[in-house]
Amino acid sequence: MSFAAASAALDAAFPGRIDRGQAVRDQHGAGDSWHPVAPPDAVFQPVSTEEVAQAVRICAAHGCPIVPFGAGSCIEGQVNATQGGLCLDLSRMDRILRLSAPDMDVTVEAGLTRQRLNEDLRATGLFLPIDIGAHATLGGMASTRASGTMTVRHGTMADLVMGLTVVLPDGEVIRTGGRARKSASGYDLTHLFVGSEGTLGVITELTLRLTGIPEAAKAGLYSFADLQAATDTVVEALQFGLCLNRIELMDALQMRAINAFNGTDLPEMPTLLVDLTGSAAQVDTDRATFAALAQDHGATVHPVDTPEAYAHVWALRHSALYAARGLRPGASSLSTDVCVPVSDLPGLVAGITATLQAEGLVAPMHGHVGDGNFHLVMLFDPADAEEMARVQRVHGELVHRALALGGTATGEHGVGLGKKPYMEAEHGAALALMKRLKVAVDPQNLMNPGKIFDI
Amino acid sequence: MSFAAASAALDAAFPGRIDRGQAVRDQHGAGDSWHPVAPPDAVFQPVSTEEVAQAVRICAAHGCPIVPFGAGSCIEGQVNATQGGLCLDLSRMDRILRLSAPDMDVTVEAGLTRQRLNEDLRATGLFLPIDIGAHATLGGMASTRASGTMTVRHGTMADLVMGLTVVLPDGEVIRTGGRARKSASGYDLTHLFVGSEGTLGVITELTLRLTGIPEAAKAGLYSFADLQAATDTVVEALQFGLCLNRIELMDALQMRAINAFNGTDLPEMPTLLVDLTGSAAQVDTDRATFAALAQDHGATVHPVDTPEAYAHVWALRHSALYAARGLRPGASSLSTDVCVPVSDLPGLVAGITATLQAEGLVAPMHGHVGDGNFHLVMLFDPADAEEMARVQRVHGELVHRALALGGTATGEHGVGLGKKPYMEAEHGAALALMKRLKVAVDPQNLMNPGKIFDI
Repeated sequence: MSFAAASAALDAAFPGRIDRGQAVRDQHGAGDSWHPVAPPDAVFQPVSTEEVAQAVRICAAHGCPIVPFGAGSCIEGQVNATQGGLCLDLSRMDRILRLSAPDMDVTVEAGLTRQRLNEDLRATGLFLPIDIGAHATLGGMASTRASGTMTVRHGTMADLVMGLTVVLPDGEVIRTGGRARKSASGYDLTHLFVGSEGTLGVITELTLRLTGIPEAAKAGLYSFADLQAATDTVVEALQFGLCLNRIELMDALQMRAINAFNGTDLPEMPTLLVDLTGSAAQVDTDRATFAALAQDHGATVHPVDTPEAYAHVWALRHSALYAARGLRPGASSLSTDVCVPVSDLPGLVAGITATLQAEGLVAPMHGHVGDGNFHLVMLFDPADAEEMARVQRVHGELVHRALALGGTATGEHGVGLGKKPYMEAEHGAALALMKRLKVAVDPQNLMNPGKIFDI
Repeated sequence: MSFAAASAALDAAFPGRIDRGQAVRDQHGAGDSWHPVAPPDAVFQPVSTEEVAQAVRICAAHGCPIVPFGAGSCIEGQVNATQGGLCLDLSRMDRILRLSAPDMDVTVEAGLTRQRLNEDLRATGLFLPIDIGAHATLGGMASTRASGTMTVRHGTMADLVMGLTVVLPDGEVIRTGGRARKSASGYDLTHLFVGSEGTLGVITELTLRLTGIPEAAKAGLYSFADLQAATDTVVEALQFGLCLNRIELMDALQMRAINAFNGTDLPEMPTLLVDLTGSAAQVDTDRATFAALAQDHGATVHPVDTPEAYAHVWALRHSALYAARGLRPGASSLSTDVCVPVSDLPGLVAGITATLQAEGLVAPMHGHVGDGNFHLVMLFDPADAEEMARVQRVHGELVHRALALGGTATGEHGVGLGKKPYMEAEHGAALALMKRLKVAVDPQNLMNPGKIFDI
């Protein structure tokens, strides 16, 4: 059973809309990563939940794999159609279906991007407080449990998705959760689908929790002698309960990359960039407190006092990935994303830095230190199998070190193909339960097969 | 297959510890509610995860139902052993296993109570920010997805449980989640078990997220002409992002009950009681802002300016349930807990109040208005079947009205036996998926059978 079996029925149901062109298939066969392109057999762009359900029913009847696709910004191979099948590209499902400003919630179609949602919301004074680097769809962000820089204040997609519409692998449409701020009513299906990377069904609609655009926002930029001093400052600031919206850490190499990429001359030392939001008075008070904590740990405080300076430092931070890649033009990159208890971060980074040096690899580090989540951007020549093996070896060591600290292989990028090798080590006997759930929901293994784990 | 089949093997494994005494069985056969006592066949108090696993393996081998039990404070019949079997009373598993003050997380055994945890943590400056009326165990609170008054600021148990140790229905022990603040690694098993009311396994350990005890806390007490004015004030305050820790609403009848119970003479009008926490300056500023918003909506502001006054008003609030019951001594009570979008709360309460009056029922209202979650404490004579039927009829109407608004049948009490009739209306086709998951995890239907839904 395969796409071939479903092909005629799909054409009959959606005349002229099942795209088999090689360029379109290739474009849908990979995200933004080093994983080899694996094109689907065809691409379909549904415009409604009912069309998704109809396509899924046809695929289910003929045993055709289904790969949901949003913006293709994933970096662990989540959309790569390694077993072929039909790619369901949801990007045309991009409407806001309902908005309640008083209740600060919104229902959208899964193909709407985060940027578009926040642009459309601007007049309401509300926004979705998720800040990630990628230009992703909200359905994709829910599917991979995306988070980014504002998690320390607002949580991840898991915290902001209130409810979903999902097309199950047999084509049945269900609704999970709802508009209540909390519920104790039965099993939490919403959280089961969030982070399931399209392996349990197709998310077609989401109800999301919004927050008010704050009155004031100010940044602080601090250079430290070492990562330990920076992390200690963060631990203390979190315990004080300061109005921190973002706490980003960059190591000395990352700062060198940022300087080279942007033509700046910031100290090439471990650096914290923080964002404080709230009332104007609170922001000023808490920024002064943060600066005092940082100075107690020997930090140099850099002035960031105008809206222009604020925009500038955050633009520098958002350039981190491209700046890192710029250290070795033409190279591929593997961006790790382990997440550990915050206090364990300096020791973990010190350990892995020694390994990186021993392996002769270049890997600047930036991360969401408030959550204990950081990225090493390991640069390598994709044509050099030996170097690639070294990169994978260091990645494996990093993951196992993180797991030994009670952490996770992936804080926000998801598993896809790239983290599959670590699932047994991370979850142990619980991995068998995940597989049992997958079989219960998708007995034919048609939904994004081969992602997260193999059956 | 039943307890009888497992009886001898349990005695052999745990000599002298399988308690069949009628008093102990009766004491474990009901929570704190009107649901008729349904005693288990025997009660066992394990002292370790391994003992739980061993007992579960024996029960699984002999088809004996298993009912996990914490403090017995549930109010929807979650612990009532309607199919007999073995009650696993976890109250002796009450240790703190690990604490990290820098990372603000703790791992505990499931039988530890919330109060004991917070007492033991006091010296660290940290606490678990869940404030519920019941004297419950943390395992029980996770199982029913408990929340209470601080949800508006800190979320529910679903937001604060980072990981679990669970004994599955076949006796296998798994660990879910971990100590990372976030993870995108595979299916979210933690949230699957949180709120599953013991129907999927036995939670034996929990890793919990803590928060810092705030520098300052002040309360505000405001009387309004009607619920709409009170709710409008809350909606505006939430959009302002004030440092609200609790926002509690009581209706005129509830205020009358509180006055009668406590000998106070507060205005018997819709009343908001708020708690603001943070830095001293922020609390003062935000309380003044809240008071101005309330006055814009016609409120009378009552002074609450000393620590003694703070303690007094919160003691009054915590007396609400007993005060409500005091309106009709000797009566039983059914406490509803629907949760709806906040802006829909006044209309919903107005509608159901009309029904209550038409049915001649007495039901004071208090609730966590910041979440749209409220309790009507409906008083009735348990010996009067006709009155009980009226109470159930009104409860049904309330639930269906809440569901029509996108809300839920239960914000925090859970389903147990009492809300089972509403699961089909709330979840539709998703209920069948919940049942499929239950069968996949517990094919023999041994774990707390008959709760949430029937198979």
